[in-house]
Amino acid sequence: MTVEQFAARHIGPDPDSERRMLETVGYGSVDELMDAAIPEVIRWHGTLDLPAPATEREAIAELRALAARNTVAVSMIGLGYHGTHTPAVIRRNVLENPAWYTAYTPYQPEISQGRLEALLNFQTMVTDLTGLATANASMLDEGTAAAEAMTLARRATKTKSNVYVVDADTLPQTIAVIAGRAEPLGIEVRVLDVERDELPAEFFGLHLQYPGASGAVRDHAPVVAAAHAAGALVTVAADLLALTVLRPPGEIGADIAAGTTQRFGVPMGFGGPHAGYLAVRSGLERMLPGRLVGVSRDADGNPAYRLALQTREQHIRREKATSNICTAQVLLAVMAGMYAVYHGPDGLREIASRTHGMAARLATGLRAGGVAVADVPFFDTVCAHVPGRAAEVVDAAAARGVNLRLVDADRVGVSCDETTTVAHLEAVWAAFGVEPVTGTVDTALPAALARTGDILTHPVFRRHHSETAMLRYLRRLADFDYALDRGMIPLGSCTMKLNATTEMEPVSWPEFAHLHPFAPAPQTAGYRDLVGQLEGWLAEVTGYDAVSVQPNAGSQGELAGLLAIRSYHRGRGEAHRDVCLIPSSAHGTNAASAVMAGMRVVVVGCDADGNVDLVDLDAKIDKHRDALAAIMVTYPSTHGVYETGIAQLCAKVHDAGGQVYVDGANLNALVGYAKPGRFGADVSHLNLHKTFCIPHGGGGPGVGPVAVRAHLAPFLPGDPVGGHDADRPAVSAARYGSAGILPIPWAYLRMMGAEGLARATGVAVLAANYVAARLRAHYPVLYAGNKGLVAHECILDLRPLTKATGVSVDDVAKRLIDYGFHAPTMSFPVAGTLMVEPTESEDLAELDRFCDAMIAIRAEIDRVGSGEWPAGDNPLSNAPHTAAMVSADEWPHPYPRSVGAYPAGVDRVGRYWPPVRRVDGAYGDRNLVCSCPAPEAFAE
Amino acid sequence: MTVEQFAARHIGPDPDSERRMLETVGYGSVDELMDAAIPEVIRWHGTLDLPAPATEREAIAELRALAARNTVAVSMIGLGYHGTHTPAVIRRNVLENPAWYTAYTPYQPEISQGRLEALLNFQTMVTDLTGLATANASMLDEGTAAAEAMTLARRATKTKSNVYVVDADTLPQTIAVIAGRAEPLGIEVRVLDVERDELPAEFFGLHLQYPGASGAVRDHAPVVAAAHAAGALVTVAADLLALTVLRPPGEIGADIAAGTTQRFGVPMGFGGPHAGYLAVRSGLERMLPGRLVGVSRDADGNPAYRLALQTREQHIRREKATSNICTAQVLLAVMAGMYAVYHGPDGLREIASRTHGMAARLATGLRAGGVAVADVPFFDTVCAHVPGRAAEVVDAAAARGVNLRLVDADRVGVSCDETTTVAHLEAVWAAFGVEPVTGTVDTALPAALARTGDILTHPVFRRHHSETAMLRYLRRLADFDYALDRGMIPLGSCTMKLNATTEMEPVSWPEFAHLHPFAPAPQTAGYRDLVGQLEGWLAEVTGYDAVSVQPNAGSQGELAGLLAIRSYHRGRGEAHRDVCLIPSSAHGTNAASAVMAGMRVVVVGCDADGNVDLVDLDAKIDKHRDALAAIMVTYPSTHGVYETGIAQLCAKVHDAGGQVYVDGANLNALVGYAKPGRFGADVSHLNLHKTFCIPHGGGGPGVGPVAVRAHLAPFLPGDPVGGHDADRPAVSAARYGSAGILPIPWAYLRMMGAEGLARATGVAVLAANYVAARLRAHYPVLYAGNKGLVAHECILDLRPLTKATGVSVDDVAKRLIDYGFHAPTMSFPVAGTLMVEPTESEDLAELDRFCDAMIAIRAEIDRVGSGEWPAGDNPLSNAPHTAAMVSADEWPHPYPRSVGAYPAGVDRVGRYWPPVRRVDGAYGDRNLVCSCPAPEAFAE
Repeated sequence: MTVEQFAARHIGPDPDSERRMLETVGYGSVDELMDAAIPEVIRWHGTLDLPAPATEREAIAELRALAARNTVAVSMIGLGYHGTHTPAVIRRNVLENPAWYTAYTPYQPEISQGRLEALLNFQTMVTDLTGLATANASMLDEGTAAAEAMTLARRATKTKSNVYVVDADTLPQTIAVIAGRAEPLGIEVRVLDVERDELPAEFFGLHLQYPGASGAVRDHAPVVAAAHAAGALVTVAADLLALTVLRPPGEIGADIAAGTTQRFGVPMGFGGPHAGYLAVRSGLERMLPGRLVGVSRDADGNPAYRLALQTREQHIRREKATSNICTAQVLLAVMAGMYAVYHGPDGLREIASRTHGMAARLATGLRAGGVAVADVPFFDTVCAHVPGRAAEVVDAAAARGVNLRLVDADRVGVSCDETTTVAHLEAVWAAFGVEPVTGTVDTALPAALARTGDILTHPVFRRHHSETAMLRYLRRLADFDYALDRGMIPLGSCTMKLNATTEMEPVSWPEFAHLHPFAPAPQTAGYRDLVGQLEGWLAEVTGYDAVSVQPNAGSQGELAGLLAIRSYHRGRGEAHRDVCLIPSSAHGTNAASAVMAGMRVVVVGCDADGNVDLVDLDAKIDKHRDALAAIMVTYPSTHGVYETGIAQLCAKVHDAGGQVYVDGANLNALVGYAKPGRFGADVSHLNLHKTFCIPHGGGGPGVGPVAVRAHLAPFLPGDPVGGHDADRPAVSAARYGSAGILPIPWAYLRMMGAEGLARATGVAVLAANYVAARLRAHYPVLYAGNKGLVAHECILDLRPLTKATGVSVDDVAKRLIDYGFHAPTMSFPVAGTLMVEPTESEDLAELDRFCDAMIAIRAEIDRVGSGEWPAGDNPLSNAPHTAAMVSADEWPHPYPRSVGAYPAGVDRVGRYWPPVRRVDGAYGDRNLVCSCPAPEAFAE
Repeated sequence: MTVEQFAARHIGPDPDSERRMLETVGYGSVDELMDAAIPEVIRWHGTLDLPAPATEREAIAELRALAARNTVAVSMIGLGYHGTHTPAVIRRNVLENPAWYTAYTPYQPEISQGRLEALLNFQTMVTDLTGLATANASMLDEGTAAAEAMTLARRATKTKSNVYVVDADTLPQTIAVIAGRAEPLGIEVRVLDVERDELPAEFFGLHLQYPGASGAVRDHAPVVAAAHAAGALVTVAADLLALTVLRPPGEIGADIAAGTTQRFGVPMGFGGPHAGYLAVRSGLERMLPGRLVGVSRDADGNPAYRLALQTREQHIRREKATSNICTAQVLLAVMAGMYAVYHGPDGLREIASRTHGMAARLATGLRAGGVAVADVPFFDTVCAHVPGRAAEVVDAAAARGVNLRLVDADRVGVSCDETTTVAHLEAVWAAFGVEPVTGTVDTALPAALARTGDILTHPVFRRHHSETAMLRYLRRLADFDYALDRGMIPLGSCTMKLNATTEMEPVSWPEFAHLHPFAPAPQTAGYRDLVGQLEGWLAEVTGYDAVSVQPNAGSQGELAGLLAIRSYHRGRGEAHRDVCLIPSSAHGTNAASAVMAGMRVVVVGCDADGNVDLVDLDAKIDKHRDALAAIMVTYPSTHGVYETGIAQLCAKVHDAGGQVYVDGANLNALVGYAKPGRFGADVSHLNLHKTFCIPHGGGGPGVGPVAVRAHLAPFLPGDPVGGHDADRPAVSAARYGSAGILPIPWAYLRMMGAEGLARATGVAVLAANYVAARLRAHYPVLYAGNKGLVAHECILDLRPLTKATGVSVDDVAKRLIDYGFHAPTMSFPVAGTLMVEPTESEDLAELDRFCDAMIAIRAEIDRVGSGEWPAGDNPLSNAPHTAAMVSADEWPHPYPRSVGAYPAGVDRVGRYWPPVRRVDGAYGDRNLVCSCPAPEAFAE
C-alpha cells in the first residue's frame, strides 16, 4: 500500500536510496545510525501516541468534516478584521502557487528579486497611503506592530518618562498586546480618552486609532501637536482602506503608523496570518524593526533589490537587540501589495467609497428607524445605541447570518467592508427592527478630513489592472526567484522540507479562510477542534503537557515561553530571578527575546567542540544563582550536534532554581526519537514553518507555538479579548494566532503518523550525515557529536580555504546559484562557514547533485588558489552569472563563458538564470531607497 | 463600480487605451468602427437577452448553488468511467496552473518542449502498457478513439468488405459512437458475441473490449487469430490499469488498441474531458490519426521534440482526409501521463492489485451470500445475477450512497476502482442483502492471462515518486514552455483570450469533478441546469433555436452539424443530396468533416479579395443543384474579413435546396453584433475553447457545441446510452461531452452579460485593426472588407519580402520567440503569410510591444535584404536563440551576440529562453521515434 502512504511522498529517498546512503555513512540501518547519533540519555524509545496515519484523501475528508463544523457568516464585527474579496488571480497565482509559497526569506537577493519587488510594492503602498517616509516589509499583525511602535518610540525619544498613552478608542486586542509587551519592559501603559481626558505631564509616546475602534473618525491633529509638545512620539494605527479617502497620518504629523493590511485581499482566517505594517517619518527609518527592502545595484550597476540595513537584524544584535522580530508576513504582504496593484488608486478609492456608502446607508436607516447612532463622523463602522437591547440585536442578526459586535449591553458595532451588500444591510436593519432605506444617502466623512491629491502614483499601481496583465506580472516576478519548486534549499536551521499540496489546499477553503477571530463560538467549533487536536499532538511529539498555538512567529513563541517563566517565578515570589543564560552559539533571537521579556542576558561559552562549556556554565550559575531565571539552549545545538551534556545542563540549571528553555528550531532532528519535555526542558517554542511543513512563504508566515510542562501551563498566552484569562499577556492579536494555516501542520501530523514522523527524522539525520560524508574530504566538517556524527545539518568550514585563496563564503554561496542551488546558511552560527540542512524531503539524486556541485566548486577554488584564475576575476568572484553577462558582446574574463554559464554537471536546458548579478548591499545602505524606483531607473 | 465588473478585467485595453487605439484606426468610437466594419445586411442591433452580468463573487455563488444540486455518490457503475485519486501535486501544478492550461497546441516546438515531453511520456505509457509500437498524443474519448480505430482498419485492410464486427461485450456508448460514425461512411456494424456467434466470412475489422463491459476477462487470442485469418484488423479497447497486470493486446496480436486514460488521475467530470488513446502495431504508425509527438533534433543536433508527420494533419489533406480529428486532450493526457510518472510501475501495479482485490472480495461476499456472480475471470467489475431484483438492489445501494450499474432486470454490475474501500463493499453487500466477508480472498485473474515482465521501464517512470521530485519535474517542464501567462499568443483563428481564474476554479470542485456520466438523474440536477442555461445562452448569442454541447471538439461539432443536415435531407426523402460546397479558403477540417459525414466535397473558389467567388458559387450550384446538401463557410472568413456577400450566398444555397453551415471558429468577431442563425445560416458549431474562454490546455480540451435552427433540432446528437433519442447518432461517448469544463463558458457568459460580450467583440475588432494600422507600412495587410477594415484578425503578407530577401515566414515566427512572443498563425489560410488575432484581452502595452517587435523584425529583414547580413546566417535564420547558443565560447556569426540574445526593446531580465534551437522536423519524420528516448540521447 505504498502509493497511498503520504510518508513515502514526503520523504525523498526511497528504500534503495536509503540503503546506498547508509552504506556511505557506514551504518546498516537508520535505527543503528540514530542509536549511534543520539545520546542515550535523551533518547526516547516509545512510539508516539498519534492516530494511525491517514492517506491524503482521508486527511482531506477529515478536514472537510472539521471545516463543515465552522459556519461562514457575514462578518460585520470589524475591529481590524474585515471581509474582503481576494482577487482570484492572486489567490491562484500567489497563495496557491509553490513558486511563491515555498520560497525562503530573501537573504540571497540575487535569487529573490521577484518577491523583493513585490515587497517593495507593499512598502510603497504603505508609505503612500500613510503619508510617511519609510515602511518595512510587514509585521506579524496589527497588535505586534503597535507594540513595536511603542518600543520604537521609547528608543527614539529623549524623555525619561516610561509612560505610554493609548487612546481608549483603540482595538482591544491591540491594547492587550501593547500591555503584554510593556509590562516586562517597565513601561506603564495608560489608556485614556484623549479627546476628553488630560494627557499626563510626561509621556514618551501616544497611540491613536484611526478610525477608532468605535468607528469614529476624529481629527487627531490637536492631540498629535500636544504630544509633540510634550516630547512624545505619536503612533497612528490607521486603516489603509480608509486612508485612500481620509487625510493620512503623515499629514497630521504622526511619527509612526501601524496597522494591518488584511482587508487588502487577505482572508480573515480566524485571526491570521495577515501582514501588519509599520511606517515611520523621515529620520526614524534606521530605527525600524523587522525587515526592510531597499534598492541597491548589482555588479553591472543595474538596479537590484535586497534587504536593507541587514546589520540591524536582531540575530546579529543579540542582547543589544531592540526587538526580537526576525520574520515578516511576506506571502500575505505580497498578496496585499498585489491587491493594490490590481485595483490601482481608482479601484481602491471605489472600494473605499462603496464601503463608506454602505455604512452611511446603514446609519441613515437606523436613525430613520429611531435607533440612535453615535453622532460622529465614521468611515465603515457605525456604533448604534440600543439601551439594554444590544445582546438581543446581536442575536437577531446572527440568526440572519450576520455577525455584529456586541460593544456592551447598550451598544452594537456594525462594520461594512468590500463584501457588504444591501441584502446584508437589510438583515441588520431587520435585526434592529427598523425598515430599509433606499435612495441616496449623505456621506458621513467630514470634508476637512478628506484626502486630497493623488494616491499610489507609481506606475506599478496603474499598469496591471486586467487579469491578463496581472497574471503575467505575477509570473514574471515568480520566475525571477528560486524556491523549493526549482530545487534544494539546504539552509541549516531552516528545515526547508516539502510543503505538500494536500497540506496546503484546505487553506483556501471558505470555511477556514473566512472566519472572523471573534466570531461566536458556535460558528467556530471546527477550528477549535482542529486547534485542540493539533495542540494535543504537538504536546505528544514534544513531551510537554500543554501547548498554545497563539505565537505567530518563532520569536513570539520565545517571548511567550520566557514570559511564562517570568510569571512562574513571580508567582512563586521570586520576581528577582531575571538572568537568562544563553550560550554563545545561540541564535541571536534568543537573546533578543530575553531582553523583551525583561531579562538580563548572560552568555555562556562553548568549548572547542562547539558544545556548551559546562565549566563556564557552572561558573555563570554560581555567579547568578539567586537571580537565575532560565537558560535558553537549542537542541540539537545550532552547530547541528546532539550535545551529550544536555541532561546535565538541565539538572544544573534546575538545581539552581532556573527553568530550562529549549529552542525548538531543530526539532526536526528529534521528533519520534527524543522529547524535550522528557529530557529536562520546561518550555520550548516550535517552528511550525520548519518541522511541521508550513511553507516559508518567502519570509513568512511563520507559526511558533509555545509548549510547556504542567507547572508553566497556567502562564501560557491569554486571549487578547478574552475574559477568563485576560490576566495572561497576549503575544498576538488573535487568540489562536495564525489559525488560518494550522490545517497545514494538522495534515502533516495526521498523514505521517508516529512511524512516518520518526522515519522523517531518521532520514533527515541520514541525509545530513550523507552530505557530511561525501563532502568531508573537500571541506572540513566543523563539529560532530557521538562517533563523529552530525544531527540533521552539518557545518562546512571554509575558513582555511578562504585564508588560502581569498574565495569567501559569499563567493561559494553565489556560485551555487550558477549550479542551480539556493545557498546554505552563511556564517551562522560560525562566521566563514556554510551550514547545510538537507531535510528528509530531498531525494538521493538531489543530494548527489548538491554534493557534486560542492565538490566541483572546491575544484574551482583550487584553480583560484593555484593562481590559474586571478583572485578578483574568476567564476566564483563573478558569481552569479546572468544570461545577459554570459551573452554580452565583450567577455573580458580569464575563463571561458561556458564555465561561467554552465559549470560542470549543470543542466544546460533547464538552468535557472538570476535576473541580476551580485548585489551591492552596502551601496544601498548608504543610499537608502525603500519604495519603488521610477521606471527610468531601469532604462539602459 | 468598475472593480467589480468582470468585463473590465477580461478586456485588456482600458478606456484611455481604447481612445488611443481608435485614434490610430481613425474612428471616434467602437460603435462607429463596428458600424463601418460589419456589413449592415448581417448586423443585428438588439441587446442579447442574457441575465445582467454577475460579479466574479456572484458567479461563484451561483455556481456553488448549482454544484450543491449535484450529489457526489460513490460510483461503482464502471463502463469506462472510474473513481480515481488525482494526486494533489498534479491537480495544483497542472490542472490549476496557467502555465499548463493556457498553452496552445505545440505547433511551435521550440517553445513547447515541456508539454511535448509530457505527451511523449503519455505515448510511452500507452505503448508500454498496450504492448504496441506507437501511440498518438491522445484522442477525444474512448468512443471516438474506437471509431477512429474502425476507419483506420478500413484504410489499412485490402478486403472489400464493409463489415465491421463489434463484440457485444463492448461499452454501450462505444458501440453507439462507432455506429454513428459508420453509417454515413457506408460501413456495416455487426454486434456479435464473438465467443459464441460465428464470425462473418468477410469483414475488415473486429473490435474487442478488454476487460469486457460485463467485467469479463477473456482470452481473445483465438478470435484475434481468426480475424487475422479473414484479413481483418483487430482493435482491442483495453483498460490501461488492467493492463498493468494483464497480458497486453500487443502480445495477442492486436493491431490497434484504443481506450481512455481517465482513471489515471483524471476526474470523471460527468463525462469528460479525459484523454482517449490510440495505439498501433508497427507498420501502421503512419496511418494513425490525430497528433503524434516525435523526437527529432534541433539546429545544434540536440534531441528535441515536435509533432511528427505534420503533413498528415487533416487540415492539410482537406477532402482527402481520412479523419477530421485535429485536436487532442493534451491537458488531460499530461495529467494521465504524470499519474504514471508519479506512481511508477510498482505504484500502478499496486493500485491495480488493490482494485482487483476489492472486486474479488466483493464477489466472494456475494457468492457467500448466495448471489450468483458470472463465472468468468474479472479484473475490477463483477456482474451479479439477481433475477427480477436488479432495480431494487441498485436502488438500495443508491440509498447507501453507492451507484451501481443496472445491466438489465436481472443483472447488476459493480465496478471497483482506486477509491474503493471496504466500507463501500459493505454498502454494496448490504444492498444485495448479504453479509460482509473478511479474511483473504482468491484472485479472479487467470494465471494464463497474467502480464509477465517489467512495465514502464523508462527512467522517467522511476524517478519522480516523491512529491518534491514531482513538483520540480512539473515546474521544469512548465518553464520550457511559452503560454498566455508569459505574453501574447496572437494566433489567427485561435482566439487566445484570457482564461479567467474565476472561470477555472469550479472545475476542481468535487461536485463538478466527481460525477459519473451515467449517474442517476436526481444526482445531476445541478449539471443539467447548468447545461440547459448554457445551451440557452449560446442559442441567444448565435441566434439559433437549439444547441447541443455534446461535441467535445470543434471537429466533432462540424460532424454533428453535417450529420444533422444529412438526416434532415434524408428525412425529407432527399438522401441523394450529398454535395458539400466548401470555399478554397476554408479550414481543412471542414472538408474532412464533410467526408466523415458521407458527403462529396466540391470546392468553390475565392476572388482576388479573398471573398467567396459568387460567380463560381453559381456555377457550382448549377452543376450540383440536385445533389446539393450544404455549403460550409466560415464567418468572418478565414481571411479575417466580414464578407459582404454572405447573405446573398445563403440565399443562393437555400434556393437550391441546400443548407448553410457557418463555421463558428470566428464567432469572436460577431458576438453581440451579428447572429449566424439570423443572417441565413442553418447550423454552426461553436468553439468554446476560442470565443468562450475554455483554455486551450496545450492542445485540448476543446468543446464544439453544435447550434441549429429549429428544423434541424430533431437531428442534434443523441444520448449514446439514452433510450428516447438513441436513433440519433452520438458524436461522443457522453451525452454532454466534456461536461466537466462547461462551468468555464457558463461563468464567462454569466459575468460578461450582453454589454460585456458586445464590448469584447468591439475591442477584439479594434485591436486587430489597430495592429493592421500600425503594421501596414511594414508588411502588406492581405484582404480587407468594408472601408479597408479587417474583422478580428489580420493577415500580414510576407511573400514579397521572402521573395526579395529569402527570409521566410518561419524565420519571422521563430525570431518572434527571441522578442518574447508566440508566433501568429503561419501560412494559414494563405501560404507565406502570418495571421494575427490579438483578441480583446491584450492591453495596449502588449499590442504595442508586439507591433514594435514586428517593426524591428522588418528592419532586420531589410538588413538581410541589403546584404549586410548573409541569407543563411543572420538573427532571423538562426532564431530562436537559446541561452546556450548566445553564451557559447565560440561565436561564428556575423552579428553580435547581443543582437541574437536581446533584440531591440526586449526585456533583458525577464527574457524567455527556449530550451532548444530550431527543430528539424523533417529529420524526425525520416527517423520516427515516438516514445521517450533513452537518457543517453541527452548526453553531451
